[in-house]
Amino acid sequence: MSDHRTLDGLIDALRRLPGVGVKSAQRMAFHLLQHDREGARRLAGALTQAVDNVRHCARCHTFTEDEICSTCRDPRRDRSVLCVVETPADQAAMERTGAYKGLYFVLMGKLSPLDGVGPRDIGLDRLFDRIDEADPEVPLREIILATNFTAEGETTAHVIAQALKDRGLQVTRLARGVPIGSELEYVDLGTIAHALVDRR
Amino acid sequence: MSDHRTLDGLIDALRRLPGVGVKSAQRMAFHLLQHDREGARRLAGALTQAVDNVRHCARCHTFTEDEICSTCRDPRRDRSVLCVVETPADQAAMERTGAYKGLYFVLMGKLSPLDGVGPRDIGLDRLFDRIDEADPEVPLREIILATNFTAEGETTAHVIAQALKDRGLQVTRLARGVPIGSELEYVDLGTIAHALVDRR
Repeated sequence: MSDHRTLDGLIDALRRLPGVGVKSAQRMAFHLLQHDREGARRLAGALTQAVDNVRHCARCHTFTEDEICSTCRDPRRDRSVLCVVETPADQAAMERTGAYKGLYFVLMGKLSPLDGVGPRDIGLDRLFDRIDEADPEVPLREIILATNFTAEGETTAHVIAQALKDRGLQVTRLARGVPIGSELEYVDLGTIAHALVDRR
Repeated sequence: MSDHRTLDGLIDALRRLPGVGVKSAQRMAFHLLQHDREGARRLAGALTQAVDNVRHCARCHTFTEDEICSTCRDPRRDRSVLCVVETPADQAAMERTGAYKGLYFVLMGKLSPLDGVGPRDIGLDRLFDRIDEADPEVPLREIILATNFTAEGETTAHVIAQALKDRGLQVTRLARGVPIGSELEYVDLGTIAHALVDRR
């Protein structure tokens, strides 16, 4: 129907969001138009502002509005350690722990040979350049591979570790083990086996 | 972090969408900025256009960009029947059947006493005004209550039916029964019981 073109356009645009099918998109459009037009305007503004202003940090490749992000610029960070994560959300999770004071490199993806995502697609070259261009006054000592413990994340970590083998750097991986607060009964066998091997 | 303000603003704005929590909002923001900036711009435009142009049809209250929607204006529709639905999505589902040629009234909600949503909140007065203002040349003959078969939808249908009791109109409800293509074994007992009582 011709007078639904704008509404259908909104539903189509919402469907491009990951995890949103036609039913969810209809529900979202209905909710915004019926109950939250202010929220719709705010979302439109936030989208435009983000697309116009958010780019990648020239050093760690995370999202930022500056040439170099605030973490890379922070003089209090330990420049001798570099933590490699898949996404800005993973970086934020590391930051929330308050336990890490080094720098980051954000891959913005992970290797996924089955989906045709190779080293070039996630810019591993940029990571190696970043490592080779480290601050001459504070040499890079350790690379912590904090990719996820999924098949793709493990593959990514493995490929990076192999490529860094001859650079004389310490390459470590986050410890695998039983999550804090969990009962052994409900933890999967692979995790318990790893926690047993890596016991301390 | 100061250089995440724009990104955090986008995540906050996405969280106002129904069914979107902080994790989904992060994933959506990441996806749009990393893989689909064109989609983000399109969504921003679609939101603004919809908020600026979509309003309620003065007759049936559905979403439209005109004073009166195309269905209400369509001279081929049967003006003697009015189908009451909860949302434009329900109206679209009815239209897709191709089995209904009358007019609609879209409640844009349902009674939900437990959530404090009463007759005034969903504009039942507007429905009664619409019924009383029917075309004098084609008197309204039947009201089909096609609210959902949920507790709230049934309540809404019941309240409307009660209010219309003395207006001399035929008030009907969509038939309850076994869905086409389903096996009895997997149909819930209430539905089978209703289908048995309403057998024909």
